[in-house]
Amino acid sequence: MEPERAWHEHHPDFDAEFRARLHMLLRWRRDVRQFRREALPEGTIERLIEIACLSPSVGLSEPWRFVLVRDPARRAAIHASFEQCNHEALEAQTPDRAALYARLKLAGLDDAPAQVSVFADRSTAQGKGLGRLTMPQTLDYSVAIAMHTLWLAARADGLGLGWVSILDPARMAEILEVPGDWAFIGHLCVGYPVEEHDTPVLQREGWERRRPPASSVLYR
Amino acid sequence: MEPERAWHEHHPDFDAEFRARLHMLLRWRRDVRQFRREALPEGTIERLIEIACLSPSVGLSEPWRFVLVRDPARRAAIHASFEQCNHEALEAQTPDRAALYARLKLAGLDDAPAQVSVFADRSTAQGKGLGRLTMPQTLDYSVAIAMHTLWLAARADGLGLGWVSILDPARMAEILEVPGDWAFIGHLCVGYPVEEHDTPVLQREGWERRRPPASSVLYR
Repeated sequence: MEPERAWHEHHPDFDAEFRARLHMLLRWRRDVRQFRREALPEGTIERLIEIACLSPSVGLSEPWRFVLVRDPARRAAIHASFEQCNHEALEAQTPDRAALYARLKLAGLDDAPAQVSVFADRSTAQGKGLGRLTMPQTLDYSVAIAMHTLWLAARADGLGLGWVSILDPARMAEILEVPGDWAFIGHLCVGYPVEEHDTPVLQREGWERRRPPASSVLYR
Repeated sequence: MEPERAWHEHHPDFDAEFRARLHMLLRWRRDVRQFRREALPEGTIERLIEIACLSPSVGLSEPWRFVLVRDPARRAAIHASFEQCNHEALEAQTPDRAALYARLKLAGLDDAPAQVSVFADRSTAQGKGLGRLTMPQTLDYSVAIAMHTLWLAARADGLGLGWVSILDPARMAEILEVPGDWAFIGHLCVGYPVEEHDTPVLQREGWERRRPPASSVLYR
């Protein structure tokens, strides 16, 4: 029994109160598109990235690469790419939905004080290929998951985060001059949110509603 | 000032103690491959899936589909697919790494009391395509992120989770007889872990080491 007791003495136990707070964090995490312009304290993003690096990755490959975008010219180019992609998405809407789509604010690129573009280094030697021979896309999944960790850590700090996907991945790599093997996964806006909600903005705006979890479950 | 005060009264604040516990959760989340065989209480997985469904998804598409695998014949077929894929991965190792690779235990398929295969419904109409015109792969990322939420919720409950990716996606769809538009994202083993650690097993076993977070950051 000794080894088991020693093990129990060292690993953390999470109690019901922590679980309740964790569920509250998950319920109140939102995709934020409206930010106050107030700057974040120096080093905030680096601290969040450190936490994000605790995320799981296929074969311990840690393929996440974070690009902190500060240069106004690059930010403007990203904004322009978003505007163009969003215009094309609007054109692709059915007539009955176009007016609502046009009203939605889908990115906080204008106001967010911090912006982080996240890439997957698909050529990383780290992990020595373990776990990804049949599913190389698990590298990209690992990066998406690290972005989610950063999101939760930001929200626990009272910060909002918005994930912008209405962008051209090739153009993002070009604007940010990243190595050729890096694949764009998403662009994050981070800052203090104007509002906080426990309901997704797309539900509040009447675009879509959540489905009951049981409708996504099969038994085999 | 009234609206802002009203808003502050309703949304949750997360304090330093919660953040410290959250970071501990992230540090002690592991990819578990050794499970006790003890069954989970009835409804455990469904409860974890409900929490996972709080995750972000592109355009509120909620494309995650969870397949609870209980049938012994299907479990055996999944195990066989893993064995074959893992054998091929072993064959692909360089001679200097093959012996270590062969010693690694890469899945808990033999002992985990619960197994959940997770798919992305790429044909879902939910979300009406919003946010994914230029990046359809964000559907798959949404599912990976929901799997990560399930992982964290499980760990907070004292459960271990292992993500198995050494599998053939087409074969998984076949074994589980899922709709044709569902793409396999990963297979999860869930149960009580034999051990708990704050260091990844691949680091403990000498396969790979974590990199310093700062080495994954660029400034532009």
